[in-house]
Amino acid sequence: MTATPAAAAPTGRPDGRADDELRPVRISRGWLDHAAGSVLVEFGRTKVLCVASASEGVPRWRKGSGLGWVTAEYAMLPGSTHTRNDRESVKGRIGGRTHEISRLIGRSLRSVVDYAALGENTIQLDCDVLQADGGTRTAAITGAYVALADAVAHLRSTGALSGEPLTGSVAAVSVGIIDGVPRLDLPYVEDVRAETDMNVVMTGDGAFVEVQGTAEGAPFVRRELDALLGLAEKGCADLTRLQREALDA
Amino acid sequence: MTATPAAAAPTGRPDGRADDELRPVRISRGWLDHAAGSVLVEFGRTKVLCVASASEGVPRWRKGSGLGWVTAEYAMLPGSTHTRNDRESVKGRIGGRTHEISRLIGRSLRSVVDYAALGENTIQLDCDVLQADGGTRTAAITGAYVALADAVAHLRSTGALSGEPLTGSVAAVSVGIIDGVPRLDLPYVEDVRAETDMNVVMTGDGAFVEVQGTAEGAPFVRRELDALLGLAEKGCADLTRLQREALDA
Amino acid sequence: MTATPAAAAPTGRPDGRADDELRPVRISRGWLDHAAGSVLVEFGRTKVLCVASASEGVPRWRKGSGLGWVTAEYAMLPGSTHTRNDRESVKGRIGGRTHEISRLIGRSLRSVVDYAALGENTIQLDCDVLQADGGTRTAAITGAYVALADAVAHLRSTGALSGEPLTGSVAAVSVGIIDGVPRLDLPYVEDVRAETDMNVVMTGDGAFVEVQGTAEGAPFVRRELDALLGLAEKGCADLTRLQREALDA
Amino acid sequence: MTATPAAAAPTGRPDGRADDELRPVRISRGWLDHAAGSVLVEFGRTKVLCVASASEGVPRWRKGSGLGWVTAEYAMLPGSTHTRNDRESVKGRIGGRTHEISRLIGRSLRSVVDYAALGENTIQLDCDVLQADGGTRTAAITGAYVALADAVAHLRSTGALSGEPLTGSVAAVSVGIIDGVPRLDLPYVEDVRAETDMNVVMTGDGAFVEVQGTAEGAPFVRRELDALLGLAEKGCADLTRLQREALDA
Amino acid sequence: MTATPAAAAPTGRPDGRADDELRPVRISRGWLDHAAGSVLVEFGRTKVLCVASASEGVPRWRKGSGLGWVTAEYAMLPGSTHTRNDRESVKGRIGGRTHEISRLIGRSLRSVVDYAALGENTIQLDCDVLQADGGTRTAAITGAYVALADAVAHLRSTGALSGEPLTGSVAAVSVGIIDGVPRLDLPYVEDVRAETDMNVVMTGDGAFVEVQGTAEGAPFVRRELDALLGLAEKGCADLTRLQREALDA
Amino acid sequence: MTATPAAAAPTGRPDGRADDELRPVRISRGWLDHAAGSVLVEFGRTKVLCVASASEGVPRWRKGSGLGWVTAEYAMLPGSTHTRNDRESVKGRIGGRTHEISRLIGRSLRSVVDYAALGENTIQLDCDVLQADGGTRTAAITGAYVALADAVAHLRSTGALSGEPLTGSVAAVSVGIIDGVPRLDLPYVEDVRAETDMNVVMTGDGAFVEVQGTAEGAPFVRRELDALLGLAEKGCADLTRLQREALDA
Repeated sequence: MTATPAAAAPTGRPDGRADDELRPVRISRGWLDHAAGSVLVEFGRTKVLCVASASEGVPRWRKGSGLGWVTAEYAMLPGSTHTRNDRESVKGRIGGRTHEISRLIGRSLRSVVDYAALGENTIQLDCDVLQADGGTRTAAITGAYVALADAVAHLRSTGALSGEPLTGSVAAVSVGIIDGVPRLDLPYVEDVRAETDMNVVMTGDGAFVEVQGTAEGAPFVRRELDALLGLAEKGCADLTRLQREALDA
Repeated sequence: MTATPAAAAPTGRPDGRADDELRPVRISRGWLDHAAGSVLVEFGRTKVLCVASASEGVPRWRKGSGLGWVTAEYAMLPGSTHTRNDRESVKGRIGGRTHEISRLIGRSLRSVVDYAALGENTIQLDCDVLQADGGTRTAAITGAYVALADAVAHLRSTGALSGEPLTGSVAAVSVGIIDGVPRLDLPYVEDVRAETDMNVVMTGDGAFVEVQGTAEGAPFVRRELDALLGLAEKGCADLTRLQREALDA
Repeated sequence: MTATPAAAAPTGRPDGRADDELRPVRISRGWLDHAAGSVLVEFGRTKVLCVASASEGVPRWRKGSGLGWVTAEYAMLPGSTHTRNDRESVKGRIGGRTHEISRLIGRSLRSVVDYAALGENTIQLDCDVLQADGGTRTAAITGAYVALADAVAHLRSTGALSGEPLTGSVAAVSVGIIDGVPRLDLPYVEDVRAETDMNVVMTGDGAFVEVQGTAEGAPFVRRELDALLGLAEKGCADLTRLQREALDA
Repeated sequence: MTATPAAAAPTGRPDGRADDELRPVRISRGWLDHAAGSVLVEFGRTKVLCVASASEGVPRWRKGSGLGWVTAEYAMLPGSTHTRNDRESVKGRIGGRTHEISRLIGRSLRSVVDYAALGENTIQLDCDVLQADGGTRTAAITGAYVALADAVAHLRSTGALSGEPLTGSVAAVSVGIIDGVPRLDLPYVEDVRAETDMNVVMTGDGAFVEVQGTAEGAPFVRRELDALLGLAEKGCADLTRLQREALDA
Repeated sequence: MTATPAAAAPTGRPDGRADDELRPVRISRGWLDHAAGSVLVEFGRTKVLCVASASEGVPRWRKGSGLGWVTAEYAMLPGSTHTRNDRESVKGRIGGRTHEISRLIGRSLRSVVDYAALGENTIQLDCDVLQADGGTRTAAITGAYVALADAVAHLRSTGALSGEPLTGSVAAVSVGIIDGVPRLDLPYVEDVRAETDMNVVMTGDGAFVEVQGTAEGAPFVRRELDALLGLAEKGCADLTRLQREALDA
Repeated sequence: MTATPAAAAPTGRPDGRADDELRPVRISRGWLDHAAGSVLVEFGRTKVLCVASASEGVPRWRKGSGLGWVTAEYAMLPGSTHTRNDRESVKGRIGGRTHEISRLIGRSLRSVVDYAALGENTIQLDCDVLQADGGTRTAAITGAYVALADAVAHLRSTGALSGEPLTGSVAAVSVGIIDGVPRLDLPYVEDVRAETDMNVVMTGDGAFVEVQGTAEGAPFVRRELDALLGLAEKGCADLTRLQREALDA
């Protein structure tokens, strides 16, 4: 990862990582007893429980098409953040951020699904943040893919499907520019200081599924954007390897 | 526990327990890094994450009273049950059962709180069911008390309070009649078959805080009610001991 | 009723009743012209209008089962309380207390219904509190049973059913401990001062359907709980007699 | 009332009334024990409970103005209609018809209120339809005025106000054209058949506050409109007399 | 228009119009490219976009009847008023005024529709106020009729219907009394000062569909009411001519 | 724009544009009479009304900071799309897509605002889509900037601010890959066929504010991403020039 300028080293990261280094990542499969797939994914202190529920049938607008469906919902537990956040069920409405992330996770997973091979089955991913320390949406996508793979294996074991509905794997990571330095996988303390913040979703073979970059402070120039994309490619490749190891375990 | 008739032994319980025996109970403190108190409580396969958030100040209707406040919210994650249940945030309204249990947990905890000693601080308990296998509300109360005790200790350590706002401890257990036999701490498979189902909340010194008994099938007679109360007294005493051990650890 | 200590007499009750005496109870049937059953029930100043609407068919999840359904909704008119309470329709959501009581009334009535004998008919009970002076939920259950009996008779008269879907009667009463003395059927002024408050629902032949006891102030010991249950048995027996008289009138 | 053509007599009205005759009207004051004013008003089988709650202070946007406020809410109990109608609190939203009628009642009452004489007090009128048989909104206005007058008297008796905040009285009636014949005060069976339906609100001294006419079937010509206005003038004069008698009782 | 007293001339109207004169009215058809009918209607500065969407089929309660359906929704853009008004979608509920006007527009249009000739087709009118300067509901009705006529022509051109579902035309205008003088078509500055405000909907052949008069200040007497009706008849006749010209263009 | 392969020319675009050519863009300022800024922006058939409302003061969480606030809301009129879409106010909740776009517009505008220079004033942008034909969010951003500039000028003319709160300009455009060919500014017919769809927001001096790319079909490789970014740079530069011309007019 040559885009990270050597000059940034002196200030360093709060947790001592290299600028292109992921936090310690843990992917714990089979975390619950009932669900078709259940994964507790940890990116440092960020903990997300990803549960895949499989059911026969598809939403009404898709009935009779022979095609399956994959969808996702994201939420944060009220006590997951430093300052407690109110429940959206109590507020009676889902906030824009929650909607946005749920949609992102769903699109990301669907990018590696062959609906015809899935048949008229639905897999619903629920990603609930138990503890938030930056990068919850990217951890959720990375963990949800593993839960999805487990749910697919479960459906195959029960005879509900025979082919291979997964055309590849998908993982996601955040990157950002802090004090002018591009960095990989930002924890909360870096995230709040980032001038630019980007979430990148990639397939296991290195193609892009989503690129969402936002200038939080000053707008960013093309050269910075290119550096961030390079960092993200590196991070997603690392995560792809960790997903494979978890699934092989 | 003499109320359980010996004759019930032959049919036995699905998990081989005695009729007056709790499921294996685990109380894991400090489960999260940020919260004032956080406990993962397990009654067999039932897993509830109880998080206590402390904040200065009280709700508006209590301002200037010098008194604190303790409140609670209960929710089930969508993937916590055998068949996925829809999110209440998505439905846009909280169901009656959720409301009822949130209120029960709040009342139960408040029964051992000295508001004057708490001062104008609020402690909010969030009890989120990660996996449901019967007895989620009683596990929640039992775990939430421990999280509350940790939050109180945390407030004391930060100098936010000096006295002792806890006047005792509180625990809860379910009891029920299955095939005519009173039993303690029902898992889901017993719960759905119970003719009568009762949740009992008690203080550590053996007084009652809440008694909620419901005839699911046939109404129950006074003698059966008395037997159930006896079983609950036994179970709450066991849980009180386990809470004390967890807090001493 | 020997549980009431004679020593309590000096302080007495605000309305001069004995500790085990109901308030004047009035059950006025046929209060409206349209409904299958309509009862204005009064426990002292508490007035609840209980209306039973019968309709062919059952909720979707029950169709084709050959079984009927009975359900209930409770609400308070805004002007029914000393201080006006806001409408839940205006607030856009039903509060926890309302949910809880609606569910309690429904469960209580269903405990005496034979769904097969009812056939695929639905009876919906609406209990609207016109004036609240304590014990609204127990008055509602007591009156709703009479409205239900009238609706069943109406269905029989129209030929919509032939058997007997009621397996018994059901009535309810509140009991509580005020200044250490157990008392029956609390009006508002006693209710707010009660250390312990219990609602008990019983069938006409003396079995328990629901027992809901709550320590409002200090937790209560087993001996107090037993005294309250005894008082409730006495009160429900009196109410059962009054229901029978009303239905025979 | 000369506008009603004599030729209509042969067909007659279902209840035998003359075309310009009100249904039997009953205005029962003091129907509840707590409220500042409470009236059960009956227009034939239509029964509306009108409750006036008085409170010190005014809504925020009016604070410090020295002016009072009067507002109203209308609702139908679920069992008030022939076929049960669902609760708006359960539906989570208030329907257009309810909104419309609540606003109409509020405007009608405010037309006879001197806000300066009322001072910074609020009177809230709740009009709940216990039984609906046509003309519920006009019965509500007619009864609500009496409850308002009682609430004003109550405020005066408690010393909360000294002047006269009522500048007159207000009453309302429905009129309509059935089979080409203009008729006064339509019950449900006439209302559903009316080609034109008009609700008219008038002050006690014969001025118009609201005129709301709707062609349900064919549009109506100016001559018909004039006849309906004449009938309404007659009906409101009768109601004004009945209000005065009730208040003098 | 003889009802306007000559004595009012000295004060005059803010925009110099005669008391019985409409503001400049513009009806621009085909304002959008997709919709079956789309009209931008302007009454002075009031601009309302009226869009008619046609679809096959009718609401569930009307299926199989052979009859069509016409319905309408009204809304104001947040920036349409002098002071921005919050979006009802953001508030999560539709206000009473919006409900009331949507219902009025729907009823008005339906008064000239022959449902049998329309067949099982639905036409939905959306009237969105782009700029509000008084009379938005009457402009909406006047413009919506033209959009409806265009949608009907569109359905005929696609062969979806063959007969004539429009039995006439419909237009609407506001009238009011300002400083004792009856005036036609009030802009905002007059509307806020009006003692009485009336909206009148009429068919093209001069019959009344809706008359909604409200005393904003002092109640109005019969003579004033008659003068307002006369003004409205004049205004609706003018608008009918303008609609015809627009449709002939 | 050399990234567009010459080989694509044969298939061509539905409207005959070059692959790096914008649709005809119209920016009509002062479209309404009341608002501080109001712009009708058209990208081909896409029409968005952008209204800027200025008000003194800021949201509560910002009071006393000396800093201003800029926020935005986006919505589609029901008749703006080929098939009518239901109103979110009627559905009672705002959809995820609407939330997402509102947030995007707000962030984009805020990237060129100096809050200190704005002082404690709030500018609210409302972007309502009158007709949708692809690229509504990018047209909204482009038009909203012009409305914002007009509102700022208005505030300056009224003396509400003196400095320059705009640090630059902002514009946005969509790009996508259709049949393997990167193209600029997609209308609906191209948008639905795009394999990859990207929205890019840039400042007037060529820096990036937002990059949101999504693989709708197959994931995209880095080379394609680079080509799309190049096209977007070209399109935003063109739009910046058009904004400047509109503001100078």
